[in-house]
Amino acid sequence: MQMNSVAIVGVGLIGGSIGLAARRAGIKRIVGIGRNRDRLEEALRLDAITDILCLSDNLSAGLAEVELIVVCTPVGLIVDQIRELAAHARPGTLFTDGGSTKRSIAEALDGPLANDCRFVGSHPLAGSEKTGVDHARAELFEGRVAMIAPTKNSREEDVQRLAGFWEALGARVVQIAPDEHDRAMAATSHMPHAVAVALAASLSDEFKDLTGTGFGDTSRLAAGDPDMWQQIFLDNRQHVGNSIRNFVEELQRLAELIEDADATKLEKYLTRAKKKRDALGS
Amino acid sequence: MQMNSVAIVGVGLIGGSIGLAARRAGIKRIVGIGRNRDRLEEALRLDAITDILCLSDNLSAGLAEVELIVVCTPVGLIVDQIRELAAHARPGTLFTDGGSTKRSIAEALDGPLANDCRFVGSHPLAGSEKTGVDHARAELFEGRVAMIAPTKNSREEDVQRLAGFWEALGARVVQIAPDEHDRAMAATSHMPHAVAVALAASLSDEFKDLTGTGFGDTSRLAAGDPDMWQQIFLDNRQHVGNSIRNFVEELQRLAELIEDADATKLEKYLTRAKKKRDALGS
Repeated sequence: MQMNSVAIVGVGLIGGSIGLAARRAGIKRIVGIGRNRDRLEEALRLDAITDILCLSDNLSAGLAEVELIVVCTPVGLIVDQIRELAAHARPGTLFTDGGSTKRSIAEALDGPLANDCRFVGSHPLAGSEKTGVDHARAELFEGRVAMIAPTKNSREEDVQRLAGFWEALGARVVQIAPDEHDRAMAATSHMPHAVAVALAASLSDEFKDLTGTGFGDTSRLAAGDPDMWQQIFLDNRQHVGNSIRNFVEELQRLAELIEDADATKLEKYLTRAKKKRDALGS
Repeated sequence: MQMNSVAIVGVGLIGGSIGLAARRAGIKRIVGIGRNRDRLEEALRLDAITDILCLSDNLSAGLAEVELIVVCTPVGLIVDQIRELAAHARPGTLFTDGGSTKRSIAEALDGPLANDCRFVGSHPLAGSEKTGVDHARAELFEGRVAMIAPTKNSREEDVQRLAGFWEALGARVVQIAPDEHDRAMAATSHMPHAVAVALAASLSDEFKDLTGTGFGDTSRLAAGDPDMWQQIFLDNRQHVGNSIRNFVEELQRLAELIEDADATKLEKYLTRAKKKRDALGS
């Protein structure tokens, strides 16, 4: 099960942390793949990768020994990049990704890839509003959930190899169908992101010096990368739209208790929400 | 301007931090006032106060030297406690509070108090979802805004003394009319709190193991004290209701861009929100 050589496309926060965690797990060769040689050299300097492979280099030579390729680029690029790389990959290479949506990617890559390569989607529930390899950490996946989203066409051996990889990085693996993943992420990640963004957008200039830690926490996600999130929102727009509607209904129920000055029901509501929030930890 | 003796009613996170910061600022005697002697002894042990005064003790004797009394109890208790304590306070004692709403408190205490005592409201924009004196820190107010909400009847000398007190604790003082304070806090604190609470409440059991740091940040405020927040929401219910309505409109604008798959406008929106959020710092 132990792999000797993996490649990471897009060595930023997630890709770089995968590299650091994979090295710590004993994987000897970690090929960083990207467009920008300077950025890859930064990743090499930080020990997140052991080898550099620019997309303009000879890909077949660089990928000759690679058993697993993890694509950590924005959601909108993943499908095309995997199709291109498969044409140069070692026969039978397993591909996965770290994208925040899974349905459209799984649908596009579920068929046969070049060189008998196969794809099984992943999504580690880790990350932050920070970006870039200089924020990468070997512990990023420690105790976190890594979701794997096989389809009915996925081979069990590929799913098992991929699960073993994430577990070696410290993650707890959860298997989930791609569309079910997207529905869950709409509720737990994409809608909360939209909420934080709308909250930041709602801040009027007259009040901008009067925010405290509470506004900071609740709007923190709005600092995320606009291009990356535009792609996630559009790819998962139906589930995100539904989740926002559900959330608005929930918020309006709370607003009603406040405006009706219903102290008993309001305190019950706040207590129930606190219990749910406390169960998540800090 | 330097004070020798202040009292703090309710020595929890905010009251305890005021005590620690006041000691660091050189104020010699800090009387902790409360119902529960054990809790006050904990505050004494943590150096947040120098003297204990239980509400069941001889208040006049305990307050004989005190120049300023800061009431840090939940919003719904502040008015009654200040009226009661004024009857036992040294003539001319200045009262303030740390409550998250200011209009109703200022209206109730704007008239003459017993013993020629006076009230000018305060609200330091510091705190967290944590509560209790064991989380108190002398640096809590460092660089934070402390709002002071005088009315047209407030004496300039009282306002200046109070401003000097908060500045000695490290805060940056902003003067604001009480109702204007409540309108601002609805937008920057109370509505975001409601948003976090509704977000926590919206989490269905099926997804509770699939949340990441993003859901955690955006819902963190929901861990706050239900009783305290019930009082804040009800006291400021008109402004909070308006702020929630404005936020829902903002969120629905964002949802529309997502559901219409308008990539250009969506990215513009996300970029604008990021710019606003980045300007606030971490």
